Amino acid sequence: MLGQVLEQIDADLEGSLERLFRLLRIESVSTDPAYAASVKTAAEWLGAELSGLGFAASVRSTAGHPIVVAHAGKHGGTTALFYGHYDVQPVDPLDLWEAPPFEPRLATSPDGKRRIIGRGAADDKGQLMTFVEACRAWKTVSGGLPVGLTLLLEGEEECGSPNLAPFLRDNAGELRADIALVCDTNMWDAATPAITMMLRGLAGEEVIVTAASRDLHSGLFGGAARNPIHVLADILAGLHDQAGKVTVPGFYDDVVDPPAEVMREWQALDFQPEKFLGGVGLSTPAGERDRSVLEQIWSRPTGEVNGVIGGYTGAGFKTVIASRASAKVSFRLVPGQDPAKVSAAFRDYVRQRAPADCRVEFIRHAGSPAISLPFDNDHVARARTALGEEWGKPAAVIGSGGSIPVVGDFKKILGMGSLMVGYGLDDDRIHSPNEKYDLTSFHKGIRSWARILGALAG
Amino acid sequence: MLGQVLEQIDADLEGSLERLFRLLRIESVSTDPAYAASVKTAAEWLGAELSGLGFAASVRSTAGHPIVVAHAGKHGGTTALFYGHYDVQPVDPLDLWEAPPFEPRLATSPDGKRRIIGRGAADDKGQLMTFVEACRAWKTVSGGLPVGLTLLLEGEEECGSPNLAPFLRDNAGELRADIALVCDTNMWDAATPAITMMLRGLAGEEVIVTAASRDLHSGLFGGAARNPIHVLADILAGLHDQAGKVTVPGFYDDVVDPPAEVMREWQALDFQPEKFLGGVGLSTPAGERDRSVLEQIWSRPTGEVNGVIGGYTGAGFKTVIASRASAKVSFRLVPGQDPAKVSAAFRDYVRQRAPADCRVEFIRHAGSPAISLPFDNDHVARARTALGEEWGKPAAVIGSGGSIPVVGDFKKILGMGSLMVGYGLDDDRIHSPNEKYDLTSFHKGIRSWARILGALAG
Repeated sequence: MLGQVLEQIDADLEGSLERLFRLLRIESVSTDPAYAASVKTAAEWLGAELSGLGFAASVRSTAGHPIVVAHAGKHGGTTALFYGHYDVQPVDPLDLWEAPPFEPRLATSPDGKRRIIGRGAADDKGQLMTFVEACRAWKTVSGGLPVGLTLLLEGEEECGSPNLAPFLRDNAGELRADIALVCDTNMWDAATPAITMMLRGLAGEEVIVTAASRDLHSGLFGGAARNPIHVLADILAGLHDQAGKVTVPGFYDDVVDPPAEVMREWQALDFQPEKFLGGVGLSTPAGERDRSVLEQIWSRPTGEVNGVIGGYTGAGFKTVIASRASAKVSFRLVPGQDPAKVSAAFRDYVRQRAPADCRVEFIRHAGSPAISLPFDNDHVARARTALGEEWGKPAAVIGSGGSIPVVGDFKKILGMGSLMVGYGLDDDRIHSPNEKYDLTSFHKGIRSWARILGALAG
Repeated sequence: MLGQVLEQIDADLEGSLERLFRLLRIESVSTDPAYAASVKTAAEWLGAELSGLGFAASVRSTAGHPIVVAHAGKHGGTTALFYGHYDVQPVDPLDLWEAPPFEPRLATSPDGKRRIIGRGAADDKGQLMTFVEACRAWKTVSGGLPVGLTLLLEGEEECGSPNLAPFLRDNAGELRADIALVCDTNMWDAATPAITMMLRGLAGEEVIVTAASRDLHSGLFGGAARNPIHVLADILAGLHDQAGKVTVPGFYDDVVDPPAEVMREWQALDFQPEKFLGGVGLSTPAGERDRSVLEQIWSRPTGEVNGVIGGYTGAGFKTVIASRASAKVSFRLVPGQDPAKVSAAFRDYVRQRAPADCRVEFIRHAGSPAISLPFDNDHVARARTALGEEWGKPAAVIGSGGSIPVVGDFKKILGMGSLMVGYGLDDDRIHSPNEKYDLTSFHKGIRSWARILGALAG
């Protein structure tokens, strides 16, 4: 049966691509209210698509963007809950895109690789559609699915998933399954599949510094008036010490290092820092001096300023002393760290650095703890085997620097473990201009899920 | 004769205001190319207005915005060159204006003072029109002017006057006079007129820091990739030490303190730092710890960050590591300092602080030295007497933190001294939202110029 399913996938690749392109054309930017109607359109398109495949699909309202839920498959036997998200990141800076971000296209790169290019190609529409198309092939060939399946497709992943946890709580009975399948992670490299066992958490804060009651002329007031950009620069510059450590008091207190067996697996990986950094035009690791690059991006917490603005930023020059300046700051967290505690410590740090005549205000943007999954698990073992058969190479067991808070919620709210498998690559430029997804990732991703579904039933 | 001229000014105040409002309605923002047509309209309006008064007026093209030149008055006797600028600052942040910036209005403040509100009300359209209206009154009453006059009205003061010095060189014979009259400065306070004898210079630099070849996902790269916002924050935070001194090497090397007699005049002024800072919601001087506030704003050099931008600055949150960040930085200079030398030292300072994987680029925005005028001068003495008669109080001799580079050019290119008299107040909010000019400044400003013109002839 599996052989026929894989043949069907190969035969219908053109059709699969066409469906993905349709989804990519929908401008489902969740963080910007201007795109709310498009986000809804994407949810409805997915609901209709899944209904067409024989799923019992519904588009559910939330206080924010809708969630798509679809059920299918045999009763009794293994059950799985698939999670993906259909919303995408904003597209700015737009002028760095080589083609419009919502007009997806297939391009051949200089090394001969065929790539799907467009916002969401990898994160997460392309990944999500590998699973939908695997289901389609099983349905087409066998009329059914090897396991009982629920799909849960979210529209607010890129803006902090404010409504997902309440939705899980309100619909726990409907959603609970033996295992969650989460497709929002990367391969180890273009030839080596991977199962992600560790994810960093996230604490996001915006800090706004206000000094004078209005913008001032730097000639008349400069030298005497407090400049909030100077204050903010001092706060941001002080966030790291010379050794690359975050200086927020207590930041490292609760950090738990990965288990020794995981560290051993990582050391065995042929990770090349030069290649990783060289791919984006860099050469020198900028983080903690006493840690390897793999630790810096997988198992160590970080503080990064994601945006800063203040004063006159248009063309030309304006000799103004601004009345306010602001920055968006995020902390990637590792197991043991509490996002609320980190946010509170950061706010204390800022308040203590604010001099006379400065008011500081904060906006909380995100807060989720890190995830570390159990290593010895039957579902993990079956998936490793299935991935090894598809790619001709054992699957690596890896960490990831990004955050997928839903994995923590599945554990906490539904009591479910997660299997994180994805086909993204480090050079996919997710969250950046010219985001891409290799055609191989898409094609072999569909085949991989078809195999994993078979293996989980086995 | 002077008595009749002053009566004519009082009688025609309504008409003077109406003409000022017409000029204020023209959106002559010089730094932004989108407003180029409006800047030209303002020049043409002034040319027509001066022709109507009997001046030989012309609107002269330059490589940028035009310059208005107008001649009138008797031959033989004293000659003067009046300078003002008809361009204005950008209006952002627009949402902080209580009414549209180019729809001027007269409002009564809670303390009963009547105020002209709109962009350019004080800087410099209101000030410029005090002189034009004084000429009008002399012409109306006497049919002529007490001194030989040339008006030189510039349209690029707010964007660094790139074409003024060449214009002065090319038209030196036409423009040279006994004294330049410059109306772009403030009174000492609402009751005390002032002659400005010292102006700070300006060096403006934009610094752009670039790291990775594209924006990066802070989850995948955070902790290992160089963040240009961190680098820029470090550069900007390091610009001042704990004592409030600028750290750029050599910055204070050439600083010359004001003459002892000027310092004595300043000490005699009843300057209240609490009131000066309190007017804009501040309480504590933020500059050099070992200097008075008056020194900080008049006779000491400064470094100020006027604008900063990098990464995601829209609504919500985006976990990005930007590939670039930039800041606009200006240095106010005092006598002895060379703007080119300060700019070069700043660039060296930045380059030395840039770590691995960072490229820094610069844009020069302004460069003019400070001005210190001779204290013992016949024109200054005559103007002091005339101002004292109008305001019932001797004119203060003051410094100013702002830069008026044209005064240096008049000296260097035309060999002329300048008399800087203006009727602005510290709370006029120039360069800020809700810019205003007191009706008293406008009315008594016209009367003051009428008296000074008479005194210069005498």
